[in-house]
Amino acid sequence: MADKIPASALQLHSLVKPDGELEVRLAELPVPSPRDHEVLVRVQAAPLNPSDLGLLFGAADLGTARYGGTADRPVLNAQVPETAMKSMQGRLGQSLPVGNEGAGLVVRAGASAAAQALLGKTVALLGGAMYAQYRCVAAETCLVLPEGASAADGASAFVNPLTALAMVENMRRDGHRALVHTAAASNLGQMLHRICRQDGVALVNIVRRPEQAALLRGLGAQYVCDMSAPDFESALTDALAATGATIAFDATGGGRLAGRILGCMEAALSRTAVEYSRYGSTTHKQVFLYGRLDAAPIEFANTFGMAWDIGGWLVFPYLQKIGAEATQALKQRVAAELKTTFASHYAAEISLADMLRPDAVAAYAARTTGNKYLVNPDRGMARS
Amino acid sequence: MADKIPASALQLHSLVKPDGELEVRLAELPVPSPRDHEVLVRVQAAPLNPSDLGLLFGAADLGTARYGGTADRPVLNAQVPETAMKSMQGRLGQSLPVGNEGAGLVVRAGASAAAQALLGKTVALLGGAMYAQYRCVAAETCLVLPEGASAADGASAFVNPLTALAMVENMRRDGHRALVHTAAASNLGQMLHRICRQDGVALVNIVRRPEQAALLRGLGAQYVCDMSAPDFESALTDALAATGATIAFDATGGGRLAGRILGCMEAALSRTAVEYSRYGSTTHKQVFLYGRLDAAPIEFANTFGMAWDIGGWLVFPYLQKIGAEATQALKQRVAAELKTTFASHYAAEISLADMLRPDAVAAYAARTTGNKYLVNPDRGMARS
Repeated sequence: MADKIPASALQLHSLVKPDGELEVRLAELPVPSPRDHEVLVRVQAAPLNPSDLGLLFGAADLGTARYGGTADRPVLNAQVPETAMKSMQGRLGQSLPVGNEGAGLVVRAGASAAAQALLGKTVALLGGAMYAQYRCVAAETCLVLPEGASAADGASAFVNPLTALAMVENMRRDGHRALVHTAAASNLGQMLHRICRQDGVALVNIVRRPEQAALLRGLGAQYVCDMSAPDFESALTDALAATGATIAFDATGGGRLAGRILGCMEAALSRTAVEYSRYGSTTHKQVFLYGRLDAAPIEFANTFGMAWDIGGWLVFPYLQKIGAEATQALKQRVAAELKTTFASHYAAEISLADMLRPDAVAAYAARTTGNKYLVNPDRGMARS
Repeated sequence: MADKIPASALQLHSLVKPDGELEVRLAELPVPSPRDHEVLVRVQAAPLNPSDLGLLFGAADLGTARYGGTADRPVLNAQVPETAMKSMQGRLGQSLPVGNEGAGLVVRAGASAAAQALLGKTVALLGGAMYAQYRCVAAETCLVLPEGASAADGASAFVNPLTALAMVENMRRDGHRALVHTAAASNLGQMLHRICRQDGVALVNIVRRPEQAALLRGLGAQYVCDMSAPDFESALTDALAATGATIAFDATGGGRLAGRILGCMEAALSRTAVEYSRYGSTTHKQVFLYGRLDAAPIEFANTFGMAWDIGGWLVFPYLQKIGAEATQALKQRVAAELKTTFASHYAAEISLADMLRPDAVAAYAARTTGNKYLVNPDRGMARS
């Protein structure tokens, strides 16, 4: 608490101009004073999640990126292709702060008891604008990290842990008994594997490469299906028949994968069918698309009858649907198992200014397995 | 009742042999005696619905059809393409009766009071095997037609009327306030138009050709969007914005249409959006595919955010979901409005043997608007 709090501080902003130019830069803004129910947090760790990249770079083509500004105040410019401008209409001309989640130290607190109780504590935060030196939030939204947990430990306490837990919750509430996950070697995928193992839920992991399959098998995963293997569909059908999984969460969100999963689910179900129905199995088969790793159009031939659904899925609307009490139970589990079940791993820790370095952008924008970056806005800054 | 009931009678059967040959013929089978709770119905009218054609011809290529047998006992053979045989696995070698619904005269009744009460009545039936001279069913499944209604009037009392009513019911129960329908000039589409007009529900009709648009406008339809018009998507977006429709029932079930509808729904919603969200509108957008008029793979680029679903939909599983009481209410409405709201129109009435005439097959298998056929198994048969 001895550090002096500056009058103004840095925050990363992303702007798409009406002519299609993206500009990402560090804005200097007044540091707010917390109101009664609020706390001011010095942000010390914020992950670069796939879900942040969409807002950070919009639909810009990073192949056109130009890096300017100074070492302390870098600026990235890039062009949004004409064809993608339609999807940018809602944000044109708005300088938007970025960063869904983070963690840091509470350095100032409002007058309320709830706010005062957090002073000096390390807390996890959710709510946008986390790529910033300071962030002012309502005390009630903070998750106090357990003894011994650093800001880096708590930086990813919301998005991935709640997403993985909500997937299992959704599976149970909709009456499914096992689930499928794609891009399964990701941080999120490994977390889901640990939850399912702990809860005794069968998980079918779909990965894109042999080394990802090896990684998951090394962690003890029982059902791992590699899309690059020639027998992918028959291996997947076997795994679906063995587990009875009829719900999938797909991070790729494009191409033919969702349809292939539904086709294999139907093939697995038809192994035990007793009577012919030209409408296919009556068991409902569900694929939720929760990411967009694959930008290709979705395409599938319907080989799986009529009892199926493909839809978008987002964790926070889902938590809203199940209500505050159920959500609180999930959050408590995250806090209790922060350094075990919900541990995240990062390839590198970078500063706010580093976020706009060409090599860093190239690395984290690739969204490859094991290449997740952690931003530390407290790093490389003069403490006055 | 004076007619003598023969010991055996004709029933249309469809068989796909393991080598991929389809064979459709008239089988002669013993006429069953009704048990206590059953009635025997002389079938006098059964429509050829799109939902019947799938079972009737399987995945056979009718371009390969060969017509044989005699005038009284015709036989149709055709070949199922190698690539489609996977979808036929469940029915190989089974000689299957066809015909989802029909109507006719109760000519014999079991001992129960419910069965006896139906003797001499004209009833509508559901439950398969309706392309037959006689059909034995449980008394409780019969819908007694109102005074003055013929078997032809009641032949389509189940599939189309309940489908149209269930669509409106589904719209209401899921919290939508208007709906979209494709292939909207069909018998079903015209019925849905009449229901929606009566109920004060806004309906957006999508058709494929100008003459279909003219037909619906002639019936008083307010929102008609013609896919062949160059401004189809902007007209559809206008109609969606005007009505607030966020649920669609799509009979085509293939190609790009479902994705285009979702894209236009999102565009309509974004007209009134107040804040940018990179996940798109939070209003849930739903497309149900209930038919397969378009055999092309489903394809779409996601331009509509994360709050959407595309799924299969069938009327009878949906009625099961809403329960017996709600379903009964819908059936009562059908009986009460059989000759008005739920009237069907047929291009021709044909006999069982006519069903396998080349010109008839060519006409009804094309599934074109205004070309629905009614089968009268009582027609052209010697009454002994």
